[in-house]
Amino acid sequence: MRQTIIGVMGPGDKASQADLKLAGELGRLIAEKKWTLLTGGRSEGVMDAASKAAKQAGGQTIGVLPFKTFDQTQVSPWVDFVILTGMEEARNLINVLTSDVVLVCGMGSGTASEVALALKTERPVVLVAPDPQVARFFASLGDPKIASDAEHAIQIVTNLLR
Amino acid sequence: MRQTIIGVMGPGDKASQADLKLAGELGRLIAEKKWTLLTGGRSEGVMDAASKAAKQAGGQTIGVLPFKTFDQTQVSPWVDFVILTGMEEARNLINVLTSDVVLVCGMGSGTASEVALALKTERPVVLVAPDPQVARFFASLGDPKIASDAEHAIQIVTNLLR
Amino acid sequence: MRQTIIGVMGPGDKASQADLKLAGELGRLIAEKKWTLLTGGRSEGVMDAASKAAKQAGGQTIGVLPFKTFDQTQVSPWVDFVILTGMEEARNLINVLTSDVVLVCGMGSGTASEVALALKTERPVVLVAPDPQVARFFASLGDPKIASDAEHAIQIVTNLLR
Amino acid sequence: MRQTIIGVMGPGDKASQADLKLAGELGRLIAEKKWTLLTGGRSEGVMDAASKAAKQAGGQTIGVLPFKTFDQTQVSPWVDFVILTGMEEARNLINVLTSDVVLVCGMGSGTASEVALALKTERPVVLVAPDPQVARFFASLGDPKIASDAEHAIQIVTNLLR
Repeated sequence: MRQTIIGVMGPGDKASQADLKLAGELGRLIAEKKWTLLTGGRSEGVMDAASKAAKQAGGQTIGVLPFKTFDQTQVSPWVDFVILTGMEEARNLINVLTSDVVLVCGMGSGTASEVALALKTERPVVLVAPDPQVARFFASLGDPKIASDAEHAIQIVTNLLR
Repeated sequence: MRQTIIGVMGPGDKASQADLKLAGELGRLIAEKKWTLLTGGRSEGVMDAASKAAKQAGGQTIGVLPFKTFDQTQVSPWVDFVILTGMEEARNLINVLTSDVVLVCGMGSGTASEVALALKTERPVVLVAPDPQVARFFASLGDPKIASDAEHAIQIVTNLLR
Repeated sequence: MRQTIIGVMGPGDKASQADLKLAGELGRLIAEKKWTLLTGGRSEGVMDAASKAAKQAGGQTIGVLPFKTFDQTQVSPWVDFVILTGMEEARNLINVLTSDVVLVCGMGSGTASEVALALKTERPVVLVAPDPQVARFFASLGDPKIASDAEHAIQIVTNLLR
Repeated sequence: MRQTIIGVMGPGDKASQADLKLAGELGRLIAEKKWTLLTGGRSEGVMDAASKAAKQAGGQTIGVLPFKTFDQTQVSPWVDFVILTGMEEARNLINVLTSDVVLVCGMGSGTASEVALALKTERPVVLVAPDPQVARFFASLGDPKIASDAEHAIQIVTNLLR
């Protein structure tokens, strides 16, 4: 009965238009594969865009929030299962440990901590269309996979889950 | 889209037959109400019994585990969404914060910490058919509700969710 | 070089005069033994009273705070080492795991969660001059020691540390 | 009474000889300034080297460990205050939040998560003699300071603490 959970990590309010578009594609493809999407659950950026697309494609979504209490202005309305941790950025570890594969879409300090934690805890992590500098940096710390686009990322996940 | 999440907390390997029976009734009734069940997710005791009954009644189940990695001998096979925290008993706080209402079935040291945290963080908590000493102790710390049986507990939850 | 760390747990703003007096005695005696005092570190109740007495007796004090940032109105001025966790009540687990022995002075929901976690994780815990109902409840969950007063508590700790 | 706490973060078993030498210099200089050293507390790499040097220079040391129980083979013998979190890499957030300034010596996946969390939570972070690629990466995420060597790092800390 255990569901496959695929994490999509990326920036919040600093996400670029390209990040949001890519997050939407990943969310949609994850839902089409019948995997469950996991994000940081906030109502902005990559978290919100991926969750929205997954829901619109009929999928299920988990959000692991840093907050102690539910505030509908801060939690994405596209999250089905709102996990309230009260643990601030320590929840980033939960995001990583809970995801069968971590997909990374855009970059920022919170996202970087998640990629680093994924490499540290040996969770498979896929950088999707990364900036070359980002790809080089994380390749110096471990073995992230690199995907050229959303379709490629999903193909890599499919192989990893076999 | 946010799902209502009802927690059922109780002992693991030290659960009594009465605890397991009650956990099963709670799991079934929660599923029949279309609420999502949340437990500590381990493969024993109240966690496992409630999850099994919820799944058999067509519901959805979340397990918030203390572990860092998935071990199928330690995680209930009746859990759909396996949240791996790597945070040992600190995950008890997440159980409490994430549950719209916390139902308590049986007692032990881990369960007591969850009831205490629920009272501390002002989450509604319902002691189901508690031992009188247990009920008196927690009534001295806050305002737990008391239910005489599973049906009564669900009635209290229904009122609390209004 | 490892220092012996003795935790003193008890209520914050709801501490009684008797709790505060007892906390002060415990803090002083811990310092006189050259042990390091650990508390929840906030600027009120048992945490503050024990820390103040330990410092006035020449001891060292650790406070493990639930907060993410330092706010001098909320942190006891008698804490030497301010550990900021950003993890709300999940820090209660750290208090318990870090203490060689946990001394309990007064009762409330947060304190109850710490006693329960200490029993769960098999840390030695001493209830100092507890209410009989409190003592009976926790004796039903595990094996807390009972001390009649501060001197007795310190004697028990001395024996446990041997 | 609050002590100034300076964190030194860096690799464990993968630390280079240069990392260890630099960690020792930082530990010694921190102790000479009468600041308290904070590390991840394990018995290897930068954590151990910095703690050893700080103790040999008469300083005080805190170790925030990922472990639930004390194991003397895994905890540096140069740590005075052993904080046991039971929270695996989630303790990295505590390292960062508790440090008045975070000094970074060498790089690895765990260390990268700490730098990223420091930038995310707006703690001052100083990269000491970083690889140029590392410096460029983190400069793209926030505003880390760059020190050319240990003395320079301490000078930067002194200015930040003013």
